[in-house]
Amino acid sequence: MVKLVAVYSTPPDKAAFDKHYFQNHLPLAKKMPGLLKCEIERPTGSPVPGTDVPHLVAHMYFKDADARLAALNSPEGKAAGKDLMAFAGKSVRMIFCEVIEA
Amino acid sequence: MVKLVAVYSTPPDKAAFDKHYFQNHLPLAKKMPGLLKCEIERPTGSPVPGTDVPHLVAHMYFKDADARLAALNSPEGKAAGKDLMAFAGKSVRMIFCEVIEA
Repeated sequence: MVKLVAVYSTPPDKAAFDKHYFQNHLPLAKKMPGLLKCEIERPTGSPVPGTDVPHLVAHMYFKDADARLAALNSPEGKAAGKDLMAFAGKSVRMIFCEVIEA
Repeated sequence: MVKLVAVYSTPPDKAAFDKHYFQNHLPLAKKMPGLLKCEIERPTGSPVPGTDVPHLVAHMYFKDADARLAALNSPEGKAAGKDLMAFAGKSVRMIFCEVIEA
């Protein structure tokens, strides 16, 4: 299994970010074909004081890299990507991962 | 459900890091009481060229924050923490998260 992980750094307006994310962006992302599971995590701190923590992290699971690529290139994936760039283009880091042990 | 996430930046010697991580550290971490699941992911790149990606990320799941704290304070958690500081103290970021949607 592979993932597409979106790491969002803390936005200037957290409430506005969350409203758009949950009401608009996440429903768009969930329309991507081949998406097996979407796990959203909210960082709440660290055992090590002073650690830089993101605002929100989304883990999107796919069967394999081909399925992930097909999802990103689908009309639904492109619509989600366009929305992402508009509301979080400067504050998001997108990372491809393999799940090597679960 | 909550998580303890360990984000490892790229070490000077990847092979030596992986050897210690999988042969020594992960077995120690898995002994923590209350650990429900441990998902290890290997970042492989990004759809956005030039994105900084970590070397390895470990997601340790617990029932709630109390269970996570008890795990960290247990003898097994302290042994894993001591090993962590010795082999990756400068290259790991530990993050507490709530799983808000799965």
